[in-house]
Amino acid sequence: EIVAWVERFFDGQSCLAGKKVLITAGPTVEPLDPVRFFSNHSSGKMGFALAEAAALAGADVTLISGPVSLPTPPRVRRIDVVRAEEMLQAVLDVLPEMDVIIKAAAVADYRPKQVFDQKLKKSQDELTVVLEKTADIAQEVGKRKAPHQLFVGFAAETEEVETYARAKLERKGMDLIVANNVSVPGAGFGTDTNIVTVYDRNGRVKTFPKMLKKMLAKELISLIGDRLHGK
Amino acid sequence: EIVAWVERFFDGQSCLAGKKVLITAGPTVEPLDPVRFFSNHSSGKMGFALAEAAALAGADVTLISGPVSLPTPPRVRRIDVVRAEEMLQAVLDVLPEMDVIIKAAAVADYRPKQVFDQKLKKSQDELTVVLEKTADIAQEVGKRKAPHQLFVGFAAETEEVETYARAKLERKGMDLIVANNVSVPGAGFGTDTNIVTVYDRNGRVKTFPKMLKKMLAKELISLIGDRLHGK
Repeated sequence: EIVAWVERFFDGQSCLAGKKVLITAGPTVEPLDPVRFFSNHSSGKMGFALAEAAALAGADVTLISGPVSLPTPPRVRRIDVVRAEEMLQAVLDVLPEMDVIIKAAAVADYRPKQVFDQKLKKSQDELTVVLEKTADIAQEVGKRKAPHQLFVGFAAETEEVETYARAKLERKGMDLIVANNVSVPGAGFGTDTNIVTVYDRNGRVKTFPKMLKKMLAKELISLIGDRLHGK
Repeated sequence: EIVAWVERFFDGQSCLAGKKVLITAGPTVEPLDPVRFFSNHSSGKMGFALAEAAALAGADVTLISGPVSLPTPPRVRRIDVVRAEEMLQAVLDVLPEMDVIIKAAAVADYRPKQVFDQKLKKSQDELTVVLEKTADIAQEVGKRKAPHQLFVGFAAETEEVETYARAKLERKGMDLIVANNVSVPGAGFGTDTNIVTVYDRNGRVKTFPKMLKKMLAKELISLIGDRLHGK
């Protein structure tokens, strides 16, 4: 009886059995000198919750993470990186073998063009820092992905969320995009909850109410499982 | 017998009984837009260890901290801030009542001159960010401090440590400065250990070997206690 219950319990959750899933998480940190850097407010919570949910759903999970203060979920292979360039390299190394790629990391899109070996002295009243674009990891994945690979991205916006998210989906060659308005309380960076809408090439797939990132992760993994099985 | 042992144990550690100690810790985070910021690699560990040691030594401790992932030490009053301006205001609010001020925070010395309300779109190949100096908290404390107040600062350098540290001590009106070379393995940002030399107006006071920040904190608090009592 207990076995039957356990089997029922896990039935809906084994939707990624035997699948290889790559998840990127957290921010990247782009140095200006040995002590100063540019970064963003990603806590890694959404990506880590997705890694945990995917592993529970039976997937073989690789988690590539920027600097965060989070424990590695059980049965997840974790690769730590700092800069966007390092994350790109780590992603490209494992990309060909993946069935699903979920880009939940908030990769810094600009980095200081000049990186100093020594700590800059606080001499000038103003300091002009030229930032240059980092490698566009989503773009590189979108360009290289095979037809059988499902590519899921995120859009963290503060205005015109649907417009920007759907444009990003097309531009980066994603199959699904999870969009949230990070300026709304309870959504986005650092919080334990999130409020998202998922879009595909044809439009809106599903809007989720405000929920814990851990619960939302299970819903998103279930949705990804359905897509993978052509539902 | 146990009472005697406990008294002996705490004897050397009650050197700040009845003293009000202000400690700043962690980095400050300076926003560029709602998701991007400029910061530094301070973990807050040294400042939090000092707060814990000062409380154990009998002090009434106020800890003003930037964003860190550390629990508040027992019997310590903690005030959380984000930007350098907020830290300055919090410091000035409590400064007059303090006996000891320990500035262990790695306050960002530059911040983006223009802060954007909306997330900047990744459109340009290059982005020029003009940084301006933040409030110099150490300077403001040095200017305002009363003769009975002991002001202790830190210098995190990557070269010419003694020269820079002693110049900083003079310039900021500090009584003691704790200098470390953050480019040496085992010293400085993020590590659990530190390697420091303490200087006063007359020169070198003491060099400590590489030790755990928690142990070093006790040594520094003991040294501060001696100074406060004219030893």
